[in-house]
This record gives sequence, C-alpha cells and structure tokens, in this order.
Amino acid sequence: MNVIEAVRWSPSGDAARIIDQTRLPLEHVERDLRTLPDVCEAIRTLAVRGAPAIGVAAALGLVASLLPYASEPGVLLARRVIEHAEQIRATRPTAVNLPWALDRMIGRAQRTSATGESLLEALRAEATAILEEDRAMCRRIGEHGLPLIPDGARILTHCNAGALATAGIGTAPAPIYLAVNAGRTVEVYVDETRPLLQGSRLTAWELGEAGIAVTVLADNMSASLMRAGCIDLCIVGADRIAANGDVANKIGTYALAVLARHHDIPMYVAAPTSTFDPRTRTGSEIVIEQREGAEVTHGFGRRTAPASARIYNPAFDITPADLVTAIVSDRGLHRAPYQFGELLTEKHGGAIAK
Amino acid sequence: MNVIEAVRWSPSGDAARIIDQTRLPLEHVERDLRTLPDVCEAIRTLAVRGAPAIGVAAALGLVASLLPYASEPGVLLARRVIEHAEQIRATRPTAVNLPWALDRMIGRAQRTSATGESLLEALRAEATAILEEDRAMCRRIGEHGLPLIPDGARILTHCNAGALATAGIGTAPAPIYLAVNAGRTVEVYVDETRPLLQGSRLTAWELGEAGIAVTVLADNMSASLMRAGCIDLCIVGADRIAANGDVANKIGTYALAVLARHHDIPMYVAAPTSTFDPRTRTGSEIVIEQREGAEVTHGFGRRTAPASARIYNPAFDITPADLVTAIVSDRGLHRAPYQFGELLTEKHGGAIAK
Repeated sequence: MNVIEAVRWSPSGDAARIIDQTRLPLEHVERDLRTLPDVCEAIRTLAVRGAPAIGVAAALGLVASLLPYASEPGVLLARRVIEHAEQIRATRPTAVNLPWALDRMIGRAQRTSATGESLLEALRAEATAILEEDRAMCRRIGEHGLPLIPDGARILTHCNAGALATAGIGTAPAPIYLAVNAGRTVEVYVDETRPLLQGSRLTAWELGEAGIAVTVLADNMSASLMRAGCIDLCIVGADRIAANGDVANKIGTYALAVLARHHDIPMYVAAPTSTFDPRTRTGSEIVIEQREGAEVTHGFGRRTAPASARIYNPAFDITPADLVTAIVSDRGLHRAPYQFGELLTEKHGGAIAK
Repeated sequence: MNVIEAVRWSPSGDAARIIDQTRLPLEHVERDLRTLPDVCEAIRTLAVRGAPAIGVAAALGLVASLLPYASEPGVLLARRVIEHAEQIRATRPTAVNLPWALDRMIGRAQRTSATGESLLEALRAEATAILEEDRAMCRRIGEHGLPLIPDGARILTHCNAGALATAGIGTAPAPIYLAVNAGRTVEVYVDETRPLLQGSRLTAWELGEAGIAVTVLADNMSASLMRAGCIDLCIVGADRIAANGDVANKIGTYALAVLARHHDIPMYVAAPTSTFDPRTRTGSEIVIEQREGAEVTHGFGRRTAPASARIYNPAFDITPADLVTAIVSDRGLHRAPYQFGELLTEKHGGAIAK
C-alpha cells in the first residue's frame, strides 16, 4: 500500500517537497519549496494545510530558504533565521503547529554555537526530527487503533485528518491504512463535508491513491447508509479534546455521533495526545468559531442562497463524551472515564501540538 | 405578507406566467409561456418545478398554446389538444402530476361538444380549476398545521416543498406562512439540502420574499443548532407516505428525524393526501431512486471528488413512522396509528396527485 506524503524533503534535500492541495482532487502536482516567498505562499494559499503538515513544511521550508546564505557571517545568518521564521509565522495566524515548529527551530539555532554550514546542518537535523516525530505519532495512532478495524469493515469518516494533514499516515485514517497494510479488506464511506468539502476533495483522494475502495456521499446521506446496515464503525479526527472526553471537531461530527448511537454503531475519535486539553474541563468551555457566510453561499464560485438570508456557519461542533465509544491516541486506546491529565504529565517527547 | 406565485394566469389570460426558477436565487424573473415550445422548454429545463406546479403550468400552458387556433374546425382543434398535450407530457417522464393534469384536460375536451372559442373556454375553466384546487389544497394544509406553529417558533426545514413547488403557498411551509399572516413571529432555519441545494436556492428565497427571517446552514450543521436549543420544531414535505405512516422524502429527512428525536424536538410532515399511498404498507416497499453521481461531484460546475471514487446519491430516504410526531394534510392533522385508507375512500374532489 502506498500512502501519499503531503510533505517531505526533496530527494536532494534542498527543498520541502509538498503535494499542492489546491490542485486536488483534479491533479496530483508536487511542488518543491526552496525560497522564502515559495514557502510563505504555499502555506498562505493552503497548498499545504492541516496543522501538523503546516508545522513540518515550515521547518523544512525554513532550512531550504536559508541554504543560499550558508557562507554569511554567523551573526548575520543567525539574524536571518529569525527573519525568515517570522515571515513564515505570519502566513497563518491561527495554526498552532506553525509557531510551535518555528519556535523550536529558532531555539535550536540559539542553542547552537556553530555558524554557516554547521548551523544549517543543526537546523536540518531539527526539521528532520519534527518531520519524523510527526510520522511516528501517526503510526502509533494507527497501531493503537488497528484492533478497531476488522477485516471487511465498512467505515464512515468525515472531513480530512488524513495523510494530507500530516507528514505521516494521518490521524483518523491511520488505523485504516495499517489495517489495509495488514491484509484486511475495508470499504470507506466519506462524507463530502460541507462547506469546504475536505472529505470529497482530500480524504477520498488520499484513500483512493492508497488503493482503498472509497464512496463519497453528501453529509445528509450517512443516516440512510447506517439504517441500511452498510456501516460498521465511524472514525473521525479531533481539533481539541476536553478533560471529560468531549470532542471538538469539524462541524458535522456531532450529527454523525448522534446518528451512530441511534444505529448502535461505534463512534471512534483518533487524535494525537497534543489535542488533549486537560485545562478545558468540558466541551461547553470551547468557543466555537463562526466562519464567513460566503463559505456556504459561494462555496463554488457562484451564489447559492439569497443575499437576504443569514448564514449559520460554525467551523466546529462539540460531541459529548458519552457519544464517543473510544478515543485512539499515540499513547493508547482510551475509554471513559478519561484520565488525560495523568497521561500528559508523564514525560513524552515528540508530541506535536495541534 | 406576500407569498410568491410560482405559476398563475398572466393578467390578460393569454399565457401561463411562471417564476423562472433557473434564475433563483440571484434574480426574480417572471416568464409568460404562450407557445407550445415555450411550455415544453420551461418544464424540461426546470424553469417551473415541483410536481403540483408542473401540473398547473402544463394545464395553463396547454390552453395558452391553443389560443391561436380558436378558428380552426372543431375536429382539427380537438386533435390539436391531444397533440399539444402529448408533447407537453413527454418533457418530464417521471412527474406524476404532469400526466394527471393533461389527462384531465383531454378528458374535458372529449366531454365537450363545443368547438372553437367555446371549447377553449371549457379548457380554460378546467385549467383554472386545477390551479385553484392546488391553491386550496395548500391553504387547507396551512390551516390544519397552523396550531403547530406558536408565536416565536424557531423552525427547521429541509428541501423545497414550498410555494415554488405549487400554485399556492406550498405544503411544508404553508403552516408557517399562515402563522406569519396571523401575526406570529417565526424564525426559519433552512438546510441547504445537498446535492441540489433546493433549501438554500429556493426555500430560503421564497420565505425571504415573504419577509420571514431566514437562516441558511449546511446540512451537517442542524444537529449543533438543536443541541444549542435553537430549534423548537421541524417541518418537512413528503414524496410518498406509506399506510403505516413511513415517509419517503428528500434525502436528509431521515437524519433530521433521528436528530430531532435525540433532542426531543417535534418532527412534522406536511403533505397533500394525494401523497398517501395505502397500497404501500411500509416504507421498506418503496424503491429509492439512485441518481447520477455527477450531482454530488459536479454540483457547482467543477469536479469536487476524485474520479476514482464511487458516489452514493439516493434521491430520497425513508423516515419510519415512529420518528414522525404528526402528519399534516389538507384533510387534517394525523397521528399514529394512521387510518389513511378510510380517509382516501371518502369522496373528496380536488386532491392533486403528487
């Protein structure tokens, strides 16, 4: 099985190679980000997207953008690291992994006495570590979730928390990829995920590239599939998980959880421990971002609702813990009552902040 | 309050005046259908749509198309009635009201000994009767449903079974229009209704034209509205209702019914008695039409899913009777156990076949 790689080093190591997600699902185009403007533009225009993938692309891209300056005096080069990092940081103000990865790169530069080529090698090592930790995180989620995916499973998923959103095999689909790798046959049903269609544009594409049988449906069709007995389990990602296990994720996740419960279908959430937020006691404390109405009314270039109508367009919803069968993380398979606090106070290198 | 009129006589009575629904929600354009090609093209291109509205437009349009031939010999004119009717009938093979209305017009012509102007006057009277019966049917649904809509009600609806689909004030929204007319304040939330967006394009527009506060949302967002306590009741139309009260309606209706039940919100269905089908014992006997995948993947002019993905695109789903709080028809407010058989064997003029 061949899982796509959303972001990695180019073969010669002088660029961050990304899949240009603005061209999906029509064309599979890879781009090598070498210059600072290239890196900034790719993040800004969502050519690379998904919090973990953005962090990795920023780290790799930062190194690539510094390569032409290897012969500069050490003080100048050290200043340039910060200048480039700040320009990359400014591209997406809300993505958490972006400043996290850049701060880690700046910290490495500041702890390194080397200059020139040696400083760049240290930064390359740090960027590679960020990349590999992300891959390892995805793989661990896949391993912990693997027992949930029996041979012949018919799986429903929503949105994209997949390989395209990480440097590895994704979070929600990671157990699916490993199940297929283990020789199990699966069938995946993908909600298109209005308004931005990450399910049909991205998840359906990456699963298809791995040779997995994929069926796309509009979000309002999943209930009828469940009633027809065509779904064995649901698995989705998460943007934030409260201490009690309430899950904030892409709008539509809560509806899916209610429908799954009505049809006695397990509802799994797969996410890195970095999304666990023990300071948030319950989902009711999570403020839901309301996004621009135009995403709903102009999703495809022309207006599809009257100008007089108000638009309700929350980015996320909250699924209460009692509708979640289990949470799969890179640390294990968790069931209520959740003990995330203890889990997170244990020392654990390599978790990427979401 | 001003409810739009999807189809009616033009002021001079020589044309069927329709709202061109292909221009909605961007432009409110009315068209007068005078010639046979005009009438056929309007039905074929969905400029007029919704089973009852199509039947009415066919009847009115047939009369308009015959007006230039009033001076023809009686035998020729009688043959022309059938010729025109058959051409109009061929425009939409699956709409039930279309052949029903045309057969009624042909029957009237055959029972009339008059020729020329007098024959046309008889046909005009028949077409006007079809129009007025449809209006009356809508109004009776509205009256029977009026007690369900309290002042201040926040209502969720799906798809379009509205004024645009009939010659009157629609079926699902009829109680809403009459509640507003009675001075009650309401707020209506409208699912966009993928894949064809009848909710955002049509229902949101017609309610807005009547001055009603409308909020459009993607289908996967209604659950979060319900959880936030923002919805007091749901009301939708129906395409067919089985003897046990199972309801076939636009895909997404069943999901709404499950979500409504989970949140203890009443789920009402409003439909003419002509949609009651006592020969169908339960919803499981209803064959669900699977429509072209392109409706999902190319809904807005460009491909939004990979070519390799299969598409699940059922036109309808079945909502089991136990999730329906009550059914509102032109004959009353019905609750389980349903006795539609008795209802339909009573003599009742004027019900329009759906």
